[in-house]
Amino acid sequence: MSREQLRSIDSQLRNLPPVLGPRTIEQQRAGYAALMSQMLVPDGTRTTAVELGGLRTLLVEPTGASRPGTILFFHGGGNVVGSPETELCLTAQLVVRTGCRAYSPDYRLAPEHPFPAGIEDALAAYRALLEGGEDPAAIVLAGDSAGGGHAITTLLAARREGLPMPAALVAFSPGLDYTRSGASIDEKAGLDPIFTRESLEGSGRLYVGGADPRQELLSPATLADPSGFPPTLLQVGTNELLLDDSTRWARRARDAGVDVILDVTADAPHVFQTYAGVLDEADRALERAALFLTQQLAGTAPATRAAA
Amino acid sequence: MSREQLRSIDSQLRNLPPVLGPRTIEQQRAGYAALMSQMLVPDGTRTTAVELGGLRTLLVEPTGASRPGTILFFHGGGNVVGSPETELCLTAQLVVRTGCRAYSPDYRLAPEHPFPAGIEDALAAYRALLEGGEDPAAIVLAGDSAGGGHAITTLLAARREGLPMPAALVAFSPGLDYTRSGASIDEKAGLDPIFTRESLEGSGRLYVGGADPRQELLSPATLADPSGFPPTLLQVGTNELLLDDSTRWARRARDAGVDVILDVTADAPHVFQTYAGVLDEADRALERAALFLTQQLAGTAPATRAAA
Repeated sequence: MSREQLRSIDSQLRNLPPVLGPRTIEQQRAGYAALMSQMLVPDGTRTTAVELGGLRTLLVEPTGASRPGTILFFHGGGNVVGSPETELCLTAQLVVRTGCRAYSPDYRLAPEHPFPAGIEDALAAYRALLEGGEDPAAIVLAGDSAGGGHAITTLLAARREGLPMPAALVAFSPGLDYTRSGASIDEKAGLDPIFTRESLEGSGRLYVGGADPRQELLSPATLADPSGFPPTLLQVGTNELLLDDSTRWARRARDAGVDVILDVTADAPHVFQTYAGVLDEADRALERAALFLTQQLAGTAPATRAAA
Repeated sequence: MSREQLRSIDSQLRNLPPVLGPRTIEQQRAGYAALMSQMLVPDGTRTTAVELGGLRTLLVEPTGASRPGTILFFHGGGNVVGSPETELCLTAQLVVRTGCRAYSPDYRLAPEHPFPAGIEDALAAYRALLEGGEDPAAIVLAGDSAGGGHAITTLLAARREGLPMPAALVAFSPGLDYTRSGASIDEKAGLDPIFTRESLEGSGRLYVGGADPRQELLSPATLADPSGFPPTLLQVGTNELLLDDSTRWARRARDAGVDVILDVTADAPHVFQTYAGVLDEADRALERAALFLTQQLAGTAPATRAAA
């Protein structure tokens, strides 16, 4: 059944107009919003428009059982499209499944605001949580696609400034290399129903602007040292040009002494978790992500201390 | 706190006599049994001696809430030491945390019974479950260390014979390469408080016997194709000579289109899950393993189908 679900989603994605390029930026943003508006948003959250670090931010809170902990979530969309609203399906899933609240900031996008504007905004949001008195051990950073990239680059920027690390990091199909040097960029050509090298390079040019992509805040998968990073969960599909952004970050994290889980779902497309409710793999992946977040936020009282 | 737990366990392990070699086989077996008898076994199971596939087998059942599903568990010990009883701490944890029963067969050990005797026994146990009417979709294979290796080699042998695959595979620090060609064999020298290249090669010679280690049933991490394998969870620590047995299998599984989770705990030793109850990382890892098994056994009813 699940294979059928995956095939059906693959077909749907192939019949969509390309999310990124070659249309105008306004058309791309509208197209992405229309696509994401079809995703199921779970019941059990309320959303409030707030300000965080000077940014318009969507606060997503559980209406049911809640627990301490704050998820700082960065939406995807290649740093060109997307908003807190487009990714509400993911943010709300994490909120419902963990009972924690989430802040989803509306960070600046290219081409109006190329690199490093988005990272500056993401860092401002993280700093605002800390300055507001949040215990870093009660914060987790999360994001999908370019937002997963922001989760990681924000921590690189935070480390440079001596800010404390949060409790955990969760990234769904993060984009971590604007040099596009991952083997999967070519090996998965055709298998990825969403991206081509050309589409990635096109949107990448808008974000990178005049900067050199060979720097850790643009290509952490090839250049950054994750030493001191918090426990990390990476979830990715095998039908993704961006697969090796995750596999390379997992390797770097492992080598740097970071707890890291590389959670690969075969034949799944980019950020397949958005299909929760219609794709079993999506629900299972989110269930695993929620357990990971809960473990890292709470510490874990061993469930079964017992006699020898 | 958890760093302190890890350091304490590292010190304890360094002060033990070596588990494998250079003592007599009887001394090694007694030493391993004594070490493992110190591990906590959770409450909530009952054990029964049964026969499975002609093997003395320990059946471990939950005394509390139970659910359908059978775990076929292979104990560790380098194919030279260990028994269903020595690994009861792990088997019982999986039973308590999943609610499923487990069978732990007492497969034959080297040097009395070198390769492929243990795999023949493990395959006989799996075949007995199938011939007894178990739905393969309700069976998972699991094991630690050499037993994690058996879980994988048993499926390679089962595939050769046209037997169906089970629902899932879970391996804790599996040994998957008797050529000992993983980079971690040398890179982790000194960091691993349990093994040295010499101790691994010494016990390996007993198991390999006169066989060529360059074959898939002895060195699957370098030679086997996991195509068609069930969803797989590999858990491993970074203070392990055997780390790259897991990283290489994860890579092969990913390339073969298998769902695979590579779950790496930094600074943790070989099969650190045996320290559940005294090491937070152990309890958390087992909690993740139990969720994974439960997902694969049940399929998952999406928890939050909801309105758009």
